[in-house]
Amino acid sequence: MKAEIIAVGTELLLGQIVNTNAQYLSQQCAALGIDIYFQTVVGDNEGRLRQALDTARQRADLIICTGGLGPTKDDLTKDVLAAFTGKELIMHEPSLDKIKSMFRDRGLAMAESNARQALMLTDSDPLMNDNGLAVGVALTHEGTHYMLLPGPPREMKLMFDTYGTSWLSRLADGRGALYSRMLKFAGIGESALEKELLDLIEAQQDPTIAPYAKEGEVTVRLTTRAATEEEANSKLKPVEEEIRRRLGKHLYATKDKPIEQIIYEQLKERGMTLSAAESCTGGLISDLITSVPDSSSVFSGSIVSYTNAVKETILQVPAGLLEGPEAPGAISKESAEAMAGKVRELLGTDYALSVTGIAGPGSAEGKPVGLVYIGLAERGKPTTVVEGRYSGTRELIKLRAAKAALYLLWQRLQER
Amino acid sequence: MKAEIIAVGTELLLGQIVNTNAQYLSQQCAALGIDIYFQTVVGDNEGRLRQALDTARQRADLIICTGGLGPTKDDLTKDVLAAFTGKELIMHEPSLDKIKSMFRDRGLAMAESNARQALMLTDSDPLMNDNGLAVGVALTHEGTHYMLLPGPPREMKLMFDTYGTSWLSRLADGRGALYSRMLKFAGIGESALEKELLDLIEAQQDPTIAPYAKEGEVTVRLTTRAATEEEANSKLKPVEEEIRRRLGKHLYATKDKPIEQIIYEQLKERGMTLSAAESCTGGLISDLITSVPDSSSVFSGSIVSYTNAVKETILQVPAGLLEGPEAPGAISKESAEAMAGKVRELLGTDYALSVTGIAGPGSAEGKPVGLVYIGLAERGKPTTVVEGRYSGTRELIKLRAAKAALYLLWQRLQER
Repeated sequence: MKAEIIAVGTELLLGQIVNTNAQYLSQQCAALGIDIYFQTVVGDNEGRLRQALDTARQRADLIICTGGLGPTKDDLTKDVLAAFTGKELIMHEPSLDKIKSMFRDRGLAMAESNARQALMLTDSDPLMNDNGLAVGVALTHEGTHYMLLPGPPREMKLMFDTYGTSWLSRLADGRGALYSRMLKFAGIGESALEKELLDLIEAQQDPTIAPYAKEGEVTVRLTTRAATEEEANSKLKPVEEEIRRRLGKHLYATKDKPIEQIIYEQLKERGMTLSAAESCTGGLISDLITSVPDSSSVFSGSIVSYTNAVKETILQVPAGLLEGPEAPGAISKESAEAMAGKVRELLGTDYALSVTGIAGPGSAEGKPVGLVYIGLAERGKPTTVVEGRYSGTRELIKLRAAKAALYLLWQRLQER
Repeated sequence: MKAEIIAVGTELLLGQIVNTNAQYLSQQCAALGIDIYFQTVVGDNEGRLRQALDTARQRADLIICTGGLGPTKDDLTKDVLAAFTGKELIMHEPSLDKIKSMFRDRGLAMAESNARQALMLTDSDPLMNDNGLAVGVALTHEGTHYMLLPGPPREMKLMFDTYGTSWLSRLADGRGALYSRMLKFAGIGESALEKELLDLIEAQQDPTIAPYAKEGEVTVRLTTRAATEEEANSKLKPVEEEIRRRLGKHLYATKDKPIEQIIYEQLKERGMTLSAAESCTGGLISDLITSVPDSSSVFSGSIVSYTNAVKETILQVPAGLLEGPEAPGAISKESAEAMAGKVRELLGTDYALSVTGIAGPGSAEGKPVGLVYIGLAERGKPTTVVEGRYSGTRELIKLRAAKAALYLLWQRLQER
């Protein structure tokens, strides 16, 4: 199947934002075995959007639009597609109810324009928006498939992953359905992983093997087309087994779940608890874990000790470790060890993670940007510390250090 | 002048890289008064690149291509443009000399294919590449202007800034440049904001007024075309003032900065410090603030108190507030007040934020999902608490509550 991505938004044409949506959808389509031949960006303009649809229809079987589903006057995508295909705009009542109840719950009056976000087209399928209000649209018209997704990346990604891909897999073209398997890796970078699998990737035909990195994790998606799930499994299994043989110690999940979700599940199953002491990650480990629903049943909390004073007074790290000419300093194996041990005791949990390091851009204690120490304390066992060196921006170093800490804990949980 | 950007490269269509070149060129064109109506991405494929050029020629006066100028077989851009315009490829001798001497200096043999990078078209102007080997091309043919730039951003930017803009300025059509102003709002949603500005948005002509939402914040962009910055300011100022009159208490910046950046700047300027006690935001406030470089100079740290036990033992919130038949509970005005006050005392900061609430999906203490209490403690003043109700997924409720807490602090900082 040939596809084209049309991103709608004047802010893209003015260069105010970068088109990460096109990148994300291209990655996902590649992994699904859908060929993207063109990406287009067009402004919030009726005539030009129509022109872009017309051009795309001549060269693609599937057109995925992002943006222009919001409540404001310049959100035109649904109106333009309706006119372009000769469909009517109709109300998707469950989405309207959701919008109404959102306003009611917050004690706000609903502006009339908000109802526009619940519109869909006659003969179309709605795509639910679990991160926002605007409902998406999937439509097949005169042999061309159209999918309208919202512009905000957080809404777009969840809608595409949750509802868009399953709609795509139902598109009957007589060639069977697409079956995918996600292999999720931690504790290894994209290029190191690719190197391990290079011969497989170069020789790939069916299934396809698509590695990609996002959010500090690496994913390999295996995709095949098959008439039945059984047939798909028989094609996917040998490839998965070979990858598992090479990289098994980094493979933490075979579903698209972040590592913090897997850790939550394993702790919950064993009735065990976790806490954290964060310096350079600044609360990110806690934020990642508490993004998992019900994480309060395994995660007690954390101390974000961004200054030495907090490390001393709240975490009770000995002052002699932190300051003085002979002290190893806050960014050291010794401090990471003390932080993990102390926070585990203070919060009374079974496990505790600690991170101390330099996220940059400036260096500290005469140590280089990207140097990070990660501690793992466990009740009744000696605390272990690993040293890591990460590159990238401040935010990327924070993320890589946080994910590395979670990988350290995940490894420990597999030992039992 | 109407322009289109064509980025050439299969790696873009596979989502392996994000199209920052299109963003950069769009920004630069906007500043030069050139309207970008479309951006296109096409792979390293002769037929489809030709098709993209043909489409662009029908709708643009200027076509800027990036990518495909390198030495390898799939670098086709110059060949395709030559065939498309009926020009010949000719050698640009100074560029060839540069390539030869680069190889000589490094003691390497030059592969024949490297000479391809020195090619230009008959009747074209060369654009020097001061950061690499491939020479750029500028050409006017049958009323359409073409510019071919290299794909690596470092080479592309320097070539465009140094040589491309002066070539373009010779095509000037005397309509002046575009000037934009960004207004950033917090504590208000996109549709509520738009409602307040509806008459202005509907009547907009010059400047244009464009609101959009991302990551829990709302931005309004004002844009006008003018011959000088002074003229632009005289057109932008009255509109900005009217918006400021209506929504001034939500307007936290006139640059594209997140609210945590502004808070950091204001605290830093005053030599003041901040801490946080986070329950339902789970470390997100800390993560946002510590994403700002140098935030350690104003942010001491936080206590993520995800369980009542941590609220009691570490934060010292009185047990009588948290549990018991008569207690207000952890999700209450009283608990938010105690959390903010206690963490400020414990960490010895000037300000402290606290958040307690229900991010969902399950409810707690018989209270609804989305109910959040936000506390703000300040040295020497009584602690204040506001109640909020947020909708969306668990992650979105966390984000909205975190941004609302930052907005509360920002408001307080403006009072001084």
